[in-house]
Amino acid sequence: MSQKITTMSPVTHRPRLSQTHTEAPLTLAVTAVDEHGQVQDKMIACERPLTLYLNWQPIVTLMTLGARPQALALGYLKNQGFISDIEQVESVIVDWEVHSAAVITREDTTHVRDKLAEKTVTSGCGQGTVYGNFTAGLDQIRLTKPHLSQSGIYALLKNLGQYNDTYKNAGAVHGCGICQDDQILSFVEDVGRHNAVDTLAGDMWLDGLKGDDKIFYTTGRLTSEMVIKVAKMGIPVLLSRSGITEMGLSLAQQLGITMIARAKGRHFLIYHGADTVEFDGGQA
Amino acid sequence: MSQKITTMSPVTHRPRLSQTHTEAPLTLAVTAVDEHGQVQDKMIACERPLTLYLNWQPIVTLMTLGARPQALALGYLKNQGFISDIEQVESVIVDWEVHSAAVITREDTTHVRDKLAEKTVTSGCGQGTVYGNFTAGLDQIRLTKPHLSQSGIYALLKNLGQYNDTYKNAGAVHGCGICQDDQILSFVEDVGRHNAVDTLAGDMWLDGLKGDDKIFYTTGRLTSEMVIKVAKMGIPVLLSRSGITEMGLSLAQQLGITMIARAKGRHFLIYHGADTVEFDGGQA
Repeated sequence: MSQKITTMSPVTHRPRLSQTHTEAPLTLAVTAVDEHGQVQDKMIACERPLTLYLNWQPIVTLMTLGARPQALALGYLKNQGFISDIEQVESVIVDWEVHSAAVITREDTTHVRDKLAEKTVTSGCGQGTVYGNFTAGLDQIRLTKPHLSQSGIYALLKNLGQYNDTYKNAGAVHGCGICQDDQILSFVEDVGRHNAVDTLAGDMWLDGLKGDDKIFYTTGRLTSEMVIKVAKMGIPVLLSRSGITEMGLSLAQQLGITMIARAKGRHFLIYHGADTVEFDGGQA
Repeated sequence: MSQKITTMSPVTHRPRLSQTHTEAPLTLAVTAVDEHGQVQDKMIACERPLTLYLNWQPIVTLMTLGARPQALALGYLKNQGFISDIEQVESVIVDWEVHSAAVITREDTTHVRDKLAEKTVTSGCGQGTVYGNFTAGLDQIRLTKPHLSQSGIYALLKNLGQYNDTYKNAGAVHGCGICQDDQILSFVEDVGRHNAVDTLAGDMWLDGLKGDDKIFYTTGRLTSEMVIKVAKMGIPVLLSRSGITEMGLSLAQQLGITMIARAKGRHFLIYHGADTVEFDGGQA
């Protein structure tokens, strides 16, 4: 498989990332009783609140596994449209003792309060979505046409099988990854798949990565909000182990995203963008 | 298995429920291309926005499968603390053409705007949770101690296998059910498990059902927000096909909820409340 060199726009000014009280284990050992009354040792996923502050204004409290709080904070604020320029972000300070992540930016944040009020009309996620504001700007998104192959997808799925540590140990989490060809560049698990997407968006933003030659993998379902977020990251391929919804499909068609679902082992279903996949029989 | 008679407090004044433009199919037929390039006919789950209004004030837009919009509207508003008295609800009007559900109540809703502002600090769900306000009143919850058995749980799991129609046809949805002994009283599927929980909360509220002799089943994970919502419904048993998180467990311990996860067929794990289960060998 040919290796592609990713053209990166280096971030000239990198925010200062700091984290105090860094103890935030991802899994916890507990005991459970099975159907026969036998005690078993089990690992469960941790879940902790993280309150995001933007220039000291409280924005939201996310319930998260807690693996990458700075990236999550940045990615959430970017995806929700609160901040837009990574070069103006001064620092991201995480303190688990007060379960907070503070983002300081030189960007003008005086209208955050109005935006929060607007957000309330259409907020939530598994519950709802930042609908009105969220879909703004979608028609300006232009995604590149990807070039995929059956063998390439097989190879990537095989490599992805090595990830998902927390899931394998403790379940109850969703995993997402930024991939390129058959390589996984970044992988994160979280209690909610939206946190995982936002964390990767934050990662890409910090590293100045472009999305056009990437594949976005998720264990979660491809609903409307997932498709929108990945499009905003500039990524033209969505790959999921789960299923899709009608609105997710409709948005993928509008935005020109190749949508591959039910992907596991040597099986997958392309709901949109089959013309971007070469059916080469699966042998690399 | 003995049949229990549920004591209901009949709702003397039932809200007027109306729905115009009732066409809201739950699944859609589409074509997909598999890994060999073969076209296949598939069903996918629908997903549509539903904007909730309370006394004509916009509250939130939920992305939902759309099976039971009136119950969802009532349950969401109740669980989020916007309304508290079913007897004062005049009507719930759903119009799919403008994807709206309007709830009219005689309850005082002049402080909704303030509440929405408060909500924004801790909003969202898979993304976040209505944290500060949401956990208010938890220490006033008193749940009855349930009496379960290994055979009873097996019988219920077997009956639950007959539900989940949309999931079986199209995937990409979560299902929840209110159960009593081995019977399923009400079952709903939705794109988001929180919508499904809220829909059942709305159902129970409309029918004046008490939660103390019920079991709450979900295909989704038992995270903190799920545990809190079910406790607010007065139900002392949580049964899930999936896993749990640390915070979900911690809340179940605080609230005295029997928490049974990874439940399928003749297997399950009791993370809390094993003392409420009789291990009778599984034969009814």
